[in-house]
Amino acid sequence: MNSYKEKLSNYIKKNNSNLCIGIDIDKQFLPKNSSLKNLIEYSFSVVDQTREFCVAYKPNLAFFEEWGSEGFIWLEKLLEHIGDQHIIICDAKRGDIGNTAKHYANAYFETFGFDAITLNPFLGSDSLLPFLQFPNKGIYVLCQTSNKSAPQLQQNTSSKVIEICEELDNNNIGLVVGATNSEGMKSIRTKTKLPFLIPGIGAQGGNLQEIISINKEFKFETIINVSRAIIFSESISSTAEQYNNMINEFYEN
Amino acid sequence: MNSYKEKLSNYIKKNNSNLCIGIDIDKQFLPKNSSLKNLIEYSFSVVDQTREFCVAYKPNLAFFEEWGSEGFIWLEKLLEHIGDQHIIICDAKRGDIGNTAKHYANAYFETFGFDAITLNPFLGSDSLLPFLQFPNKGIYVLCQTSNKSAPQLQQNTSSKVIEICEELDNNNIGLVVGATNSEGMKSIRTKTKLPFLIPGIGAQGGNLQEIISINKEFKFETIINVSRAIIFSESISSTAEQYNNMINEFYEN
Repeated sequence: MNSYKEKLSNYIKKNNSNLCIGIDIDKQFLPKNSSLKNLIEYSFSVVDQTREFCVAYKPNLAFFEEWGSEGFIWLEKLLEHIGDQHIIICDAKRGDIGNTAKHYANAYFETFGFDAITLNPFLGSDSLLPFLQFPNKGIYVLCQTSNKSAPQLQQNTSSKVIEICEELDNNNIGLVVGATNSEGMKSIRTKTKLPFLIPGIGAQGGNLQEIISINKEFKFETIINVSRAIIFSESISSTAEQYNNMINEFYEN
Repeated sequence: MNSYKEKLSNYIKKNNSNLCIGIDIDKQFLPKNSSLKNLIEYSFSVVDQTREFCVAYKPNLAFFEEWGSEGFIWLEKLLEHIGDQHIIICDAKRGDIGNTAKHYANAYFETFGFDAITLNPFLGSDSLLPFLQFPNKGIYVLCQTSNKSAPQLQQNTSSKVIEICEELDNNNIGLVVGATNSEGMKSIRTKTKLPFLIPGIGAQGGNLQEIISINKEFKFETIINVSRAIIFSESISSTAEQYNNMINEFYEN
């Protein structure tokens, strides 16, 4: 069985893409009085219009949980609709004591069948270990997030997060490193060769060219996420294509 | 409208209890081949046997998420079964950027209707703020967790977590402080008067008498959680009663 890292590289090659599309269907960006049914249709249409321009989809669970159990039925249908030609990353940022983490791992790797999940390392390695019992699944551990208040607790933790992840890695661990702080990303890149999942491009304002130059050697392991700037654009398909072309061009030059 | 803190104190007085029962229905502790239906019935029975001995229930979402959308239907039914005579705390440990956190807040305060939620502070104050827009709802922020690897990242963060929470508090913020490190709890208690939600009693081995002596002045704000040691005991009702009596006795002496 392939490791997650091998699967990731294979898919990046096969799809000729490092682009991940974040599926955060926020009703405030859709016509007023949109029903859950409208949102479900919209999410399917986002997938249909972008399949050939991305390597991964990343549903953000908050936008499903908001709808209660109906939201999880939607998530199940969405995963089926995406199929198996893309990496599907569960953006859940879970983090809990070991006994609980085991049940989160079962939830998202077995019940839902995601390929990878984002995790919060605040509880330390206990909270990551149960997810590593699934050798062909990946975890992306928050190392530097893309929001303004990130440095409050993270300014002194990134070295420790890297150390924990390097120690546990079996070709199945990556780091979430936000594009909004490129100096921080550079510094993290000098300390580790772990794959990065990079949010913060698009609505959050990160500089695409700069973050690719930092990850130039890691073409076949890097995932660059764009959510709102694609899924709520006027022409979803061509915006996704443009982002994908830009990424490929910056990697070539 | 009462603040969360007032509601909490009123319920502790009314129910004559500081005990919270963690609803983590783990199928490994139930007869082999138990179905989801059996687990649902078991969770209802736990509630029926313990109502008069506790002030709060704390469903741990991992144990529901593990069952996919069916698990969330279960959670919705369970909340209805518990009713409104107890504080219901969502043990979700969510933590995400502000725009996402807003949707988590809608999910658990509006859609599901919980009274309070546990949150992970790793992303800083952005991740807490949307939850504070619901003035009668409470948040419990992880400050010192009860697991072995907790110190890896938390050894240098608890003062900052306290500082963030003190600054944002409007009688709606508490801290999660594990019972398994009573020295750490003592130190946190010297720095803040925020209410504590205390896990780690029972299966995890925290010392009940000691943690009550640390929180002696805070009888009407402290929540002490017990999960496995009650819900999988041979006599759920009398075990809950015993824990509740012990807590009341330690508070009186």
